[in-house]
Amino acid sequence: MARSIDLAVIPGDGIGPEVVAEGLKVLSAALPSDVKLATTEYDLGARRWHATGETLPDAELAQLRGHDAILLGAVGDPGVPSGVLERGLLLKLRFAFDHYVNLRPSRLFPNTATPLAGRPDIDFVVVREGTEGPYVGNGGSMRTGTPAEVATEVSLNTAYGVERVVRDAFERAAARPAKKLTLVHKNNVLVHAGHLWSRTVERVGAEYPGVTTDYLHVDAATIFLVTQPERFDVIVTDNLFGDILTDLAAAVTGGIGLAASGNINPTGAFPSMFEPVHGSAPDIAGTGKADPTATVLSAALLLRHLGHEAAAEKIEDAVTADLAERDGTPRSTAAIGDALAS
Amino acid sequence: MARSIDLAVIPGDGIGPEVVAEGLKVLSAALPSDVKLATTEYDLGARRWHATGETLPDAELAQLRGHDAILLGAVGDPGVPSGVLERGLLLKLRFAFDHYVNLRPSRLFPNTATPLAGRPDIDFVVVREGTEGPYVGNGGSMRTGTPAEVATEVSLNTAYGVERVVRDAFERAAARPAKKLTLVHKNNVLVHAGHLWSRTVERVGAEYPGVTTDYLHVDAATIFLVTQPERFDVIVTDNLFGDILTDLAAAVTGGIGLAASGNINPTGAFPSMFEPVHGSAPDIAGTGKADPTATVLSAALLLRHLGHEAAAEKIEDAVTADLAERDGTPRSTAAIGDALAS
Ligand SMILES: CC(C)[C@H](C(=O)O)[C@@H](O)C(=O)O
Ligand SMILES: CC(C)[C@H](C(=O)O)[C@@H](O)C(=O)O
Repeated sequence: MARSIDLAVIPGDGIGPEVVAEGLKVLSAALPSDVKLATTEYDLGARRWHATGETLPDAELAQLRGHDAILLGAVGDPGVPSGVLERGLLLKLRFAFDHYVNLRPSRLFPNTATPLAGRPDIDFVVVREGTEGPYVGNGGSMRTGTPAEVATEVSLNTAYGVERVVRDAFERAAARPAKKLTLVHKNNVLVHAGHLWSRTVERVGAEYPGVTTDYLHVDAATIFLVTQPERFDVIVTDNLFGDILTDLAAAVTGGIGLAASGNINPTGAFPSMFEPVHGSAPDIAGTGKADPTATVLSAALLLRHLGHEAAAEKIEDAVTADLAERDGTPRSTAAIGDALAS
Repeated sequence: MARSIDLAVIPGDGIGPEVVAEGLKVLSAALPSDVKLATTEYDLGARRWHATGETLPDAELAQLRGHDAILLGAVGDPGVPSGVLERGLLLKLRFAFDHYVNLRPSRLFPNTATPLAGRPDIDFVVVREGTEGPYVGNGGSMRTGTPAEVATEVSLNTAYGVERVVRDAFERAAARPAKKLTLVHKNNVLVHAGHLWSRTVERVGAEYPGVTTDYLHVDAATIFLVTQPERFDVIVTDNLFGDILTDLAAAVTGGIGLAASGNINPTGAFPSMFEPVHGSAPDIAGTGKADPTATVLSAALLLRHLGHEAAAEKIEDAVTADLAERDGTPRSTAAIGDALAS
């Protein structure tokens, strides 16, 4: 556990800067007083792209690499064409820093809204692969814009890439009370990628006899997420299926206003990046209506990743307590941040 | 509107034969008495595969082609390796018969269970592309089973294939009261395929000024399906996203026991195939517990496709009435079929 944290901060656009400010407020309040926190802001996102046309220059990528971790708010605005910041900034960071574990816990906190009747008991974590699958950017189009256009997207999957994330998921499952791992894929249709995943879970699973495993097709998994979410403990899945499942999981556990995520390189070779699952919500930017809780919970994941387990738990307990006290009276972004920090 | 229907029937495995029997019962009861119905059964599915190793021999594919339409129950059992019947039978039929419109209506009938609080008003239809995308079977693996394995899946998308299904979806949207079409894709990550879809919707949409269009990323679409499903009217989407969304849609509208689907070739060049979204449910096969409603509703889609609109509506009205009368007392597969037929 380091006695200092050198943090890169990418506030981004829309509500990004607002929620990041509260995230940092809570993060520093939770840290033991002898841990020094240094932050460096990076001006990346839609504003930067509009001004300079740049998404993530190599020089800044190199600087970012020198930090212990990265906290990101949200990037994007309606004026940026779809794909520019996603491929040029967010995914570039995940790929460049080999963030192969995209960690997304889902928990239905007491006293939070869920669209599900009966308030099921939800507490699982999705381990989404972050560097392979259909996200590799290995597609193209020919005769673009003509009636003879052909467009492809290639999902690339390697034993190397699947095994390391499956192993990480087994470790997490082994450390949880329920000790259950569910692989989600679509191995009856995407047979090559799917069977690589299934075989890997079976093989690595032999080393974890205490962990129960099962398998669900992604379509069936969405059914269970709304009819029986309590059946899940740890889910391991590919990049695209993980994207879909975690938004749905966020929806059933109170919305993406609460959903945290970590883009993690468990080896420590590169800084890991933590960010709320939500976007920049330009419609409410500047109104003080954004809920910073997802960013605050992402900061807790960040602290846990850096070894500050006690501080991470402190934040999570504060969030649980704060949510339990909410009575529907709207509070500003800063008011929630202040409450959590105190 | 033909005065005779030459129907191929693939009862399949598990509960397949049971639900198909009721589907046929209701279908013939709904037809005007001067329409002659002929059925030919095909022995395809898990039982056949266990017995002969065959999934869909060319000779039977050729015979099937001669029918007006196909009604399928469900195929599969746990003894068949994942992918064998899916790729060798179900998808083979969809591809061979160019079923480019995979039609899946979602409606929350009165008096049916939904996991959603507040019983939102759900009535939309998903037009899922059926012959392209990640389903084309264009993947492979090398060094299979070694630590150096690489597995790929290629999503193939053509202007030809996307335009015809988008056009079909606009036609359906234009014929509905809300006249709204939502494209679902992931064009910020799968930029090549996604932008082909977006450009096509924009271009074809210019011919349908009365239809409102919007766009959602697939992850966001899953959120709205549980938080605001009433916002959807017609959804058009790719093969894989459509698979995922329609299972989730079925879950929020009372479960896959009620979800019908049509694999349609709108040109009539090939027979279209109708089937419940659910599987063969081997655990309840033979117990009389299977709900045949999804198959009955699929039969209604079949009749509508063949021009028997009045008979289709008769069936749908009977289902609505039957569901409204249900009081939770369990009824057998045949009892539900009898009630619907009468
Ligand atoms: C913005 C986008 C690239 C991203 C993704 O698809 O991974 C987002 O949806 C997420 O889940 O973090
Ligand atoms: C069985 C499988 C091939 C199929 C699909 O993925 O299309 C099923 O899930 C469906 O939705 O009809």
